[in-house]
Parts: sequence; structure tokens; C-alpha cells
Amino acid sequence: MKETLVPFFEPRSVAIIGASAVSGKPGHEVIKNILDNGYTGKLYPVNPKGGKILGVDVLSSIASLPRDVDVAVIILPAGATAQALRECADQGIRHFVLSSGGFAEVDEAGARIQEEIVRIVREKDLKVLGPNTSGHTSTPQGFTSTFFPQGKIRRGRVSYIAQTGNFGTHTLKYIMTGECFGVARVVGLGNKVGLDETDALEYLGNDPETSAILIYIESFKRPLRFLEVAREVTRRKPVVLLKSGATEAGRQAAMAHTAAMASPDRIVEGMLRQAGVVRILDYTHLILAGKAFSMLPLPTGNGVSFLAPSGAMLTTLSDFCDRLGLHVPPMEPDTVQRLQDISPSYIRMRNPVDIWPAAIATGVEFAYREGMEIVLKDPAVNAVVPVMMLTRESGVPDPAFIVDLAKKYPTKPILVTFSGAKECMDEYKAALEPKGVPTFQEIEQPFEVLSIMVRCSQAINRPL
Amino acid sequence: MKETLVPFFEPRSVAIIGASAVSGKPGHEVIKNILDNGYTGKLYPVNPKGGKILGVDVLSSIASLPRDVDVAVIILPAGATAQALRECADQGIRHFVLSSGGFAEVDEAGARIQEEIVRIVREKDLKVLGPNTSGHTSTPQGFTSTFFPQGKIRRGRVSYIAQTGNFGTHTLKYIMTGECFGVARVVGLGNKVGLDETDALEYLGNDPETSAILIYIESFKRPLRFLEVAREVTRRKPVVLLKSGATEAGRQAAMAHTAAMASPDRIVEGMLRQAGVVRILDYTHLILAGKAFSMLPLPTGNGVSFLAPSGAMLTTLSDFCDRLGLHVPPMEPDTVQRLQDISPSYIRMRNPVDIWPAAIATGVEFAYREGMEIVLKDPAVNAVVPVMMLTRESGVPDPAFIVDLAKKYPTKPILVTFSGAKECMDEYKAALEPKGVPTFQEIEQPFEVLSIMVRCSQAINRPL
Repeated sequence: MKETLVPFFEPRSVAIIGASAVSGKPGHEVIKNILDNGYTGKLYPVNPKGGKILGVDVLSSIASLPRDVDVAVIILPAGATAQALRECADQGIRHFVLSSGGFAEVDEAGARIQEEIVRIVREKDLKVLGPNTSGHTSTPQGFTSTFFPQGKIRRGRVSYIAQTGNFGTHTLKYIMTGECFGVARVVGLGNKVGLDETDALEYLGNDPETSAILIYIESFKRPLRFLEVAREVTRRKPVVLLKSGATEAGRQAAMAHTAAMASPDRIVEGMLRQAGVVRILDYTHLILAGKAFSMLPLPTGNGVSFLAPSGAMLTTLSDFCDRLGLHVPPMEPDTVQRLQDISPSYIRMRNPVDIWPAAIATGVEFAYREGMEIVLKDPAVNAVVPVMMLTRESGVPDPAFIVDLAKKYPTKPILVTFSGAKECMDEYKAALEPKGVPTFQEIEQPFEVLSIMVRCSQAINRPL
Repeated sequence: MKETLVPFFEPRSVAIIGASAVSGKPGHEVIKNILDNGYTGKLYPVNPKGGKILGVDVLSSIASLPRDVDVAVIILPAGATAQALRECADQGIRHFVLSSGGFAEVDEAGARIQEEIVRIVREKDLKVLGPNTSGHTSTPQGFTSTFFPQGKIRRGRVSYIAQTGNFGTHTLKYIMTGECFGVARVVGLGNKVGLDETDALEYLGNDPETSAILIYIESFKRPLRFLEVAREVTRRKPVVLLKSGATEAGRQAAMAHTAAMASPDRIVEGMLRQAGVVRILDYTHLILAGKAFSMLPLPTGNGVSFLAPSGAMLTTLSDFCDRLGLHVPPMEPDTVQRLQDISPSYIRMRNPVDIWPAAIATGVEFAYREGMEIVLKDPAVNAVVPVMMLTRESGVPDPAFIVDLAKKYPTKPILVTFSGAKECMDEYKAALEPKGVPTFQEIEQPFEVLSIMVRCSQAINRPL
């Protein structure tokens, strides 16, 4: 199956059926996206009017396409899609992205068209993504089939599979504009008449460009096969999954969205856990965990140390760690002594680390740098979260020291969060994230993300 | 008790014992803060050197203070505090803020000094905040006793009680720089030799400037009295509490922080619930709930409607509501019909609202404005969360329409969140929050906050 998906992600030549010269139309924006992303393969827009679109020659018919087209993106009204699919198949095209909506997700008439497409797909043994998909993206090849105006999509090492158009459109837009990490592949499953989450997972599991896989799903098309594939992939890389429709309210919403019959949640839960898939509940965690996987090594255990300028945060976050299954381990006597050495004598140092007295006595940068390095050296500590105190008045250190520590201790993830002035936090994010150190606006988030990473690490290392 | 705290929050004259001419010293910054906040009462800095600090005449001794001083802020080393306290008491001063640290939170010697202070307080019947407090703030009087450089602290209608220095310093700095809401009173309890959380709660419960009370606490000094007071206050206004030290890890951290012996968590939980106090677990919720209480009415029920441009979000958030105890009620046939009227016929409208088809068909602003108004009119809906789709390409509507809707439906909270480009979200936050409509970066947050508000509303309306 892996072989057969390669043309989707590494297409050497692509036809756009329904290309449009009109800016804003999906058949136009998809071409603009492909050009913006630096795709270097052949591109064949097809439109009866011919001419040029964005400088690219337009073919006037499917019949005039050359025989070597790897993928056809069909962006036509639902009613015209089946005929185009047949014609393309007659030209020897085997891989398709069906971008239009208006199929089973809409009404009875749409469902009938979708059935016809399924027949064609079976008859001609085609590989189809969609219909009703927001497309797919493959940054290593500079290719995307999305018609949502994305501009250049940043390359990265995490990949997403989503049974929703939103991910490849608005959520990806957020990631591109609000975060610093990129993506390797994004697959919008749409109505899944051909390709489903299991195919995508299998491909991404073997994809050297993908180091972690994040999935949003409402229903499993082939649950047993999915678990079979997942069981194997999760031994090699993190697989994080948000399965919605877990509650009655969610099930009703899922039914309205994709007519998906959600499975009983407890059964899903148990099966996913056995297969090493790490389940999450927040949509936002798809983004935050993606950021962490993009920048950090997996922790080798659940031992965490954190440094905060506030006993209240140390206490609250200790509670929080406990609830998340993270361990705040006692540290070696040597570690404690070294922390004591950088702190005023009145404070009794321990894990978690009250860095406030040292910061006041020795300066913010010195205290955090020394404190972080001391705990990074402790064998019981697998990850470190500095809650950076950042105000102009107490001095905002150059964040480069955190980048240095991250390089020096490459096996221990460092996740940064803050207490202080917003503009200083924004400066830190802008300085640290392009250098591979993730930051989190809210102090709970690094721990939520760490707990996801720890579960992934445990899944990878679980006994056979 | 209420009477006796009035001088703290409405002081007509204040002495600063340990005033300093040196910028950056606490005894200097406190004066700068008081001046920056527009305090119009009398201010008497005291320092043996005399002269002027920031233009204010300095008295050279406590003995030379006039007899009408309401509050003395003592910012001296711990060892000099007891003597100053005595001298001030001899001048007829009854209310004190003891800002220094170095007492029981530090070592045995500090504990002995603290015991002496307790003796003086009892002997002379003084009212004392601290020691080891980051001070208190009272924006209606333009007064603050904090030495942390805050500049002008924005006035608002929520008040905070915190058994941690961090709240009145770094967290308040974040609120002032990263959020648009303000505070009425902030009380940093410190070591609680005199004033405790119960005194503060009782005062704030009767304070017309305070419409909601948020508390961070590690231990209750007088648990039964606290519950007694809370039981009564929670019938009038929201009382939200983060009690840390709830887990073993947290208890150990709390012990290190304030030597507080945390109470068994299940007992605390049950007693707080009975007293109508709404317990939260995330430190960030102190900020987010504070924002919501500052801007919104309390919902009159747990029925929520939300509009999102994505079936995935509708499904995920339906699950999320279910877990939070929020209800996503079916809507009246009329409401459904009106939603249908603004949407393409293929989509079957319901609650929650898939606004994407309407937004594509009729434009983002029209769809959201009409959609929100339609659900706001439904009697089963007590609050509305629009997940705004915001990208330049689909057009970013002027957010004024949301302000208009908030004014038109003043009993139904509207909490805004986003899907799309980060810079558009930031523009919306900057435009909406000064007009009283709160926004939330992550799509889960409005629901978390709503669930806190619903519980507060239920507490207020609980049977006698």
C-alpha cells in the first residue's frame, strides 16, 4: 500500500481538472498554492477555455493530457466529477484528489454521485483522496493540492491526518501564522471513498520525512486494520489521536458532520491504548503537541523538573504533574547541594526548584542558567520546564542561554513557559522557537504536552 | 471585621517606613507605585536621612509622623520590623503592611521575630497584612502597597486574594500587559500573622467595588470560619478558588513554600462545594475567569450554543462541553428554521451551529452576525461562543457587530474564540476586549471559563 501512495506525496506531474483563471476560485487558488510552494514537477491545468493561468499553459481537455500524469486534482462541481474521473482514468491516471464537496455529506443526490464514484474507483482500481477534502500537502516536494489560500507552507517533520477540512485550511493557517514549526505531510481525508486513515497511517509510518503523526478522526473506516497498522507504527514513532464523538453530545455532532457512526468510547479507548496510540481530548493539543514533536526529543522517562519564581506555581504545578502522570522526582544530594550553592542560605532547595531567591540574589539569567543546568544533569530528570520570570524591571536575559542548554543536553526536552510581562513572553517565543526551543503561553501547557510525549515514549518502548 | 479593614483599602494617609531614595529598592518602588497610581491621600515617607523622594517630603523618624496615619507600610529588614511596629503603634497607627521577608518562611531566627510580631499585634490590637507579602492594591482609591514595579494598575471589578507573592507581582504584570481587564482589590496574604483569607473574603464580600472574588490559597488559617463566611458571600457574588497542595507532590511543594500543612483534599473539596465556592485546578483559570467576570454577566443556566466553521470543532467541542457539565441544548423549531434560512439548503442546521456553509454562501460577517443573533434569541441558550473564522482571504469582518450583539443581549455572555490567522486573532482581541467582549486564544478556553461561571451562577442561586 505504501508504494501506491507515493505518487500522491511525490508527484512528478499533476493535472488540475477545473483550473480557473479567476482569482479566489478554488481551481485558481490550488494552482497559486502549488506555485507558491515551489513545486518543480510538471503542472497541467485543464480548462476548455485554454490560455494561461498564472503563467502556466492551460490544456483545453482531459484528452489532451500527456500519458505520464501522476495525480489529477479534480475541482469540478460534484455532478461533473464522475465523468472527469472516467476520462482521466482513460488517460492512464491512477491517483486522484477529489476536492469538491456536494457528495454524501450533503444529500441523497450527492450520495448517489458518490456511489457512482465508488463504482468507478473499484472498476478501474484508482487511488482516490476525498471527495469533499481540503486536499493534501507534501512540503518535501513543495506540493499541495489544497485550494485554501495558504501561501508557502513551512516544511517540518510532523505529519497530520485529519477527517475534517478545517485542519488543512484554518488550523494550518494558524500554525503558519502563529507558530514557528512546519509540517511534512498533511492529509485531509474527506469522505474516504478510497484512501482512509489506515492507508495514510501506513504511509506516514514508513515515511522518513515524518517523525510524529497526529490524527483527528470521527470514525474508523477499517478499525481492525487501523489497530493492526497502528500497533506496528507506534513502536517507531509517536502516534497521537483525537477521536471525537466520545460523548453523546459529540456523537450527535459527528453524525451531523460526517454522518459517522461513532464507536462506543470505552472500546475505542482500550483498543487504542493497546495499539500504542496516545489519545488526546483537546483540539489545541494537536497544535501544541505538533510543536513539541517538531522541536524536541522524546523524554526517556516521566521525571520532570521545573523552575519557577513562585512557590504557588511550584505547588500548583506539582499537583498538575501528579494528575497528568508526570513524576517530580527527588534529586540526587549533589544536585540539591549545587542548587543550594546558587541560592541564599535561607531557602531549602528541592525539586521543583524555587528559583526566585537565586534570581534576586544573583540575577535572572545566572539563576535560570545555572539552575537549569544543575537539574538537567540529574539522572532522575528527563525533562525541564523553566517558568521564566520576565519583566523589564528585573531584567530580561538574552534567551540564547536556553538554546545553548538545549543543544548541550539533546536528550532532555526543555519546554519554556512564563510569568511576567506579555511583550517579553512574545520576544522569547520569537527568539526561541526558530532555534528549536518551544514556548507555551500558559504554564499548564508544557506539562500537558510533556505528558503526551511521555505516553508516546512509553508506547514506543512497550514490551512486545 | 469589615469596618476594621476599610483603612487598608481606603487609606487617607499612609506612612512608608523604610522609604528609599534609591531607584529599584523596594522602599523606593512602593512610593513610585503609589504616585503612579494617582493616590490622592497624604503620603509620609520615613527615612533617617530626610530630604525628598520623588518630590515627596521625607520625615526623619517615626516619632515625627502626625497622629492621623491610617496605614503604615513597613519595608525594613525583618530584624528591624518589630521595633518599627512598636514605634508606629505608639504614634497611634493601627493598620500595617509588613512587606519584608525573612520571617517564619525562612528560618528559626525569622520564626522568632515573627513570634515577637504576633505578640505585639495581640498586645496592641493591630491589624496586620503580612509579613512576607507583596502588598495589596485598591484601584478605586488609586492606592497600592506593592513594591514590585507595576506602574498604573488598571481599575476593574474583580478582586483577588492570594497566598503567594507571585500574584500581586508577575501575574498582575501579565494581566496589565497581556489582558485588557483591571482589578478592584488585590490582597497578598503573606505569612498571615494578622489578616487572613477569611478577613479578606468577608471584606470583599461586602465591597461594592468587587463583583467577583478569585482566591489562590495553600492552607486555611481558620477553615470553619472561612466556610461560614464563604457560605454567605457565595450567595451574592462568584467566589472561585484554587487550593493547591491537593496531591502528595503538591503537598510537599506547599510545605516547602509556606510551611502550610495542606488539608486532606477530599474533605476540602466537599466543604468548599457545600459553601458554594467554585474550585478550579489551573492557575491560568485565575486569569481567564477574572477576564470573564470582568466583562460578562453570569449565565442563567448551562445551555450553550456555539458556532464554528468546522464540523470537527463542533464535534470535539460538544464532547468537551459534555465533560465540563455544559449542555448543548436542542433549539426551538423556529431557531432551527431561521438558521436554515441563512444557510445553503444541503446542510441540516442544529445546535451546535455549522456556520461554514452560510459563511461561504453569504459572507463571514453576515453569517456570524445573523447566526449569533438567531441562537441568542433561543430561550434554551444561556451563552454563545462564536469560533470566528478569520483569514484575510475570506475577509475579516469588523468585530463591532459582536459588540453590538453583546449590548443587545446583555444577559447572555458571549465568549469569542478563533480558527485562522494569528494576526487576525490579535486584532480581534485588541478591538473586542476594551469594548467588554472577552476573547480566548484557544478554542477550549471559553468553555472552561463558562463552566466556572455556570457553577458560580448555580452557587448563587442554590436553595437555602
